[in-house]
Amino acid sequence: MSYASQMLESDIASRIDPSQLAETIDALGDCAQACTADADADLREDSVASMVTCIRLCLDCSDVCTATRGVISRRAAYDEAVTGPLLAACAETCARCREECERHAHEHSHCMVCAEACRRCEQACRDLLTVGKTSG
Amino acid sequence: MSYASQMLESDIASRIDPSQLAETIDALGDCAQACTADADADLREDSVASMVTCIRLCLDCSDVCTATRGVISRRAAYDEAVTGPLLAACAETCARCREECERHAHEHSHCMVCAEACRRCEQACRDLLTVGKTSG
Amino acid sequence: MSYASQMLESDIASRIDPSQLAETIDALGDCAQACTADADADLREDSVASMVTCIRLCLDCSDVCTATRGVISRRAAYDEAVTGPLLAACAETCARCREECERHAHEHSHCMVCAEACRRCEQACRDLLTVGKTSG
Amino acid sequence: MSYASQMLESDIASRIDPSQLAETIDALGDCAQACTADADADLREDSVASMVTCIRLCLDCSDVCTATRGVISRRAAYDEAVTGPLLAACAETCARCREECERHAHEHSHCMVCAEACRRCEQACRDLLTVGKTSG
Repeated sequence: MSYASQMLESDIASRIDPSQLAETIDALGDCAQACTADADADLREDSVASMVTCIRLCLDCSDVCTATRGVISRRAAYDEAVTGPLLAACAETCARCREECERHAHEHSHCMVCAEACRRCEQACRDLLTVGKTSG
Repeated sequence: MSYASQMLESDIASRIDPSQLAETIDALGDCAQACTADADADLREDSVASMVTCIRLCLDCSDVCTATRGVISRRAAYDEAVTGPLLAACAETCARCREECERHAHEHSHCMVCAEACRRCEQACRDLLTVGKTSG
Repeated sequence: MSYASQMLESDIASRIDPSQLAETIDALGDCAQACTADADADLREDSVASMVTCIRLCLDCSDVCTATRGVISRRAAYDEAVTGPLLAACAETCARCREECERHAHEHSHCMVCAEACRRCEQACRDLLTVGKTSG
Repeated sequence: MSYASQMLESDIASRIDPSQLAETIDALGDCAQACTADADADLREDSVASMVTCIRLCLDCSDVCTATRGVISRRAAYDEAVTGPLLAACAETCARCREECERHAHEHSHCMVCAEACRRCEQACRDLLTVGKTSG
């Protein structure tokens, strides 16, 4: 059980299922790390010149996932006006990064791993967004 | 002249006016710092219990501005699908943080300073968003 | 198996055992998240005024762990002169945050969870630092 | 006058000259941004394969400066045990990044700009470290 999950267990005031929230927090942290590592692995390829778009999107995705993880980890004074658009932007960034990583996945296993992390994170953000809207 | 401005001078391929981009980058960095400092100043107030919403929004706003600054600082493989929603989310976060800071501005000058940083940053994000859309 | 671990499997050029590196990366990410969540949980306590030191140290620890995770995730052009002092600073920050969290652990279970995350992260940083020095 | 400077004016309890602290905060934010922008400008060069070390160090330096800026912006419960080693690690990172950027400065003006930002930031960190030690 992750620390996120342990922290959230007593968050009974929340409208959101703690296990879903913990899963999203974990997906965001994993995706941020996968993108940082993939950008670096791209830099070590001989074909680095052809990986520039992938590197750039990975750096963007890592930044956005890190910020989103911080914001949704904060339960004091939860504010849908902040969280909603950010989750939407994060899902969009993950989608773009995943598409680009998939283009290189047949050649570079690190891009395949990163694409999978982005896919899971995009889905988690979209799922949380849906819950936020229906229960708001 | 800021480093951002010096870096962008030769970015002639960009559709966006380098001075406007540099101004936005500076506004994002200033807002991130103002929010970090304001959250901390709130923590030092005797009335910290009444500042919880302000602290939370300042922490959120700092995270989102830092990520947005990173993303718009990257000109390689610029991607409106990533930048657009993020600028919109950032403007929204700045707006919410500004509103809350304004509620405390008469009492705490640090909140007044932070509200001003948020206002300038929100405006810069919205202006850049407009340019991105019209020239896309 | 974490994404970090999958990414590092083929990093055979490294002097550092990939599984140890992956474990450290995971410990840093977990600690950053635990600290963000603990600072927030502190803010929601009635006794928030007595939690200010804990909040501040958690925010610091989250920032430092996030940066350290980024740096040690990058294997291209690995540089002991950068990584060494940062791991040492991170271990020190985790130690201070853990000490403060332990002071509140009997009262707040979220502080107990955070203290444990800090302890594991401090140990992981010190272990990696030792490897770096002996194999440098 | 920067927001940092305005925020710090009333921080009379601090042992550190507010204007020196504000200057360091600004130098850290400027350096983080310059490094982000330089890594990106490197990615856009035809000779990207020869810029890998520079890109990696710029990404590291941006992460470390951002974390350090956060930590020294927090004045509540100031803790030399946290701040000291982090400022030292940050100065070291800036020094390494500056050295690498200087190697490319004759060819790429963006590296020259970044080297200057790193030099100023390294000096600011070392100066603040000295003050912290003498007044601690």
